[in-house]
Amino acid sequence: MAVEDSVAQDQLRAFIERIERMEEEKAAIGADIKEIYAEAKGNGFDCKVLKRIVNIRKDKQTYDEQEAILELYMSALDMV
Amino acid sequence: MAVEDSVAQDQLRAFIERIERMEEEKAAIGADIKEIYAEAKGNGFDCKVLKRIVNIRKDKQTYDEQEAILELYMSALDMV
Repeated sequence: MAVEDSVAQDQLRAFIERIERMEEEKAAIGADIKEIYAEAKGNGFDCKVLKRIVNIRKDKQTYDEQEAILELYMSALDMV
Repeated sequence: MAVEDSVAQDQLRAFIERIERMEEEKAAIGADIKEIYAEAKGNGFDCKVLKRIVNIRKDKQTYDEQEAILELYMSALDMV
């Protein structure tokens, strides 16, 4: 095998292994997040609503705008 | 506000903040993974193929099975 091939091969393996390590860390954090939701559920909180809260807090302005439009449409449809 | 309400309120805030911290960590790792792919691309590697490698290594057996069936079908369709 040529020297360059062997270098590329080591480099390829190194990249794959770095990605795999980071993917493992990401998955571990994902599992931790699931555990927090489970703990919250055990304390009587609604997990779907908690997830909505987390999302709303990422972009409160868009949420406010969407809610205003929703209210308008619901009112137009006599839903309120 | 009743004492119980205030406890639940603190607990709710604590859960949301814990989730948000973990989500931030997860997003940071996601950004790190993107950087590794960018670095690999800079070194001449094909990122789509790297991603396929990462996925294949998660479940090599399923990959081998699917490849065997693919080969069979391609051969049946005179594609090889």
